[in-house]
Amino acid sequence: MSRWEPGTRERLEQAALELFVERGFAETTVPQITERAGVTTRTFFRHFSDKREVLFANETELPALAARMIAEAAPELSPMEIIAGGFEQVVAAQFAEGAEHFVARQSVVYADDGLREREMRKMAALTDALHQGFLTRGSDELTAALTAQVTTTIFGVAITRWMRDRGATPLPELLHDTLTHLRRVMADPGWIDAQATQPESRP
Amino acid sequence: MSRWEPGTRERLEQAALELFVERGFAETTVPQITERAGVTTRTFFRHFSDKREVLFANETELPALAARMIAEAAPELSPMEIIAGGFEQVVAAQFAEGAEHFVARQSVVYADDGLREREMRKMAALTDALHQGFLTRGSDELTAALTAQVTTTIFGVAITRWMRDRGATPLPELLHDTLTHLRRVMADPGWIDAQATQPESRP
Repeated sequence: MSRWEPGTRERLEQAALELFVERGFAETTVPQITERAGVTTRTFFRHFSDKREVLFANETELPALAARMIAEAAPELSPMEIIAGGFEQVVAAQFAEGAEHFVARQSVVYADDGLREREMRKMAALTDALHQGFLTRGSDELTAALTAQVTTTIFGVAITRWMRDRGATPLPELLHDTLTHLRRVMADPGWIDAQATQPESRP
Repeated sequence: MSRWEPGTRERLEQAALELFVERGFAETTVPQITERAGVTTRTFFRHFSDKREVLFANETELPALAARMIAEAAPELSPMEIIAGGFEQVVAAQFAEGAEHFVARQSVVYADDGLREREMRKMAALTDALHQGFLTRGSDELTAALTAQVTTTIFGVAITRWMRDRGATPLPELLHDTLTHLRRVMADPGWIDAQATQPESRP
């Protein structure tokens, strides 16, 4: 049986993010966060070890989800088919808060060197989890390394597009579109000609 | 007319790298470096602002070279054709010291959090230069972003392969092979079938 009411964690996250945006990350204290969320500091520390952890609360979930999805994928699928087939599930599990939430979070993270470096390590951990997941599934080292890095690139670029237009286009659609565009960019010229498409549109 | 003999800078770099490997980065002092290189500390500071800069001496050259190569490329080339066409030139200009040098440098950089973060920023600066270079050339934002990130991925993976086999295969060959493999990984299944090839080799 849970010792705290449902939603407390989400209220703390929301209060912290608001205060980080309003006052800056360094200037915000845990008592200010708990006051806004209407809970005690003791409750805060049941959920988070410090205010920084609020911004990185789910950081181990995405690598774990990625590893599970790779392990459970149908054996006939290629690595990029597994990735493309997981876009909807990943978004539902990890990006439910919507684009505005991530725009606010990014503005806080990018304003602080330490948070930015932590964010880079978080992306590196996701890449490592994907890499290891494909190796475990039997991919060769080169395929595993490249698929992992390209997946992180697709997520990074699609999320940037999503935040830029404030969520007007659903994130899964942007992920699929970014993958399609990357396929065109990567395709060799012979393939491009065969598809009668261009690797870039010039103004 | 140069006030110092040719080769001093390279001798300082070599001496510093040897000492960083032998004693550790934090434990090495500038006087130790200059003693081994046979020059005065005054000479050291004509070339480098501190010992950290020795490891990042060429860090602005690669982004500048990348920007120049994109700007001067033939107009009919696609972004990935420009990248592939520049592998030999980039390696000749930036990786002439050979694989062993980069293995030693990497062991130093990866042993220190501050150096590792600086290295990540260096790769980010290269990605930014590529991105900006393609935008300036008239690529759309999405193509420029994806080509830039994929290029950094190809270089990172190919250099890792090069260091792992201690330079046994020339780096330009590994760059081309990594690009070819990434094209296979990215290709959609229809294209894979048409080429009668597999996106990964299973054991």
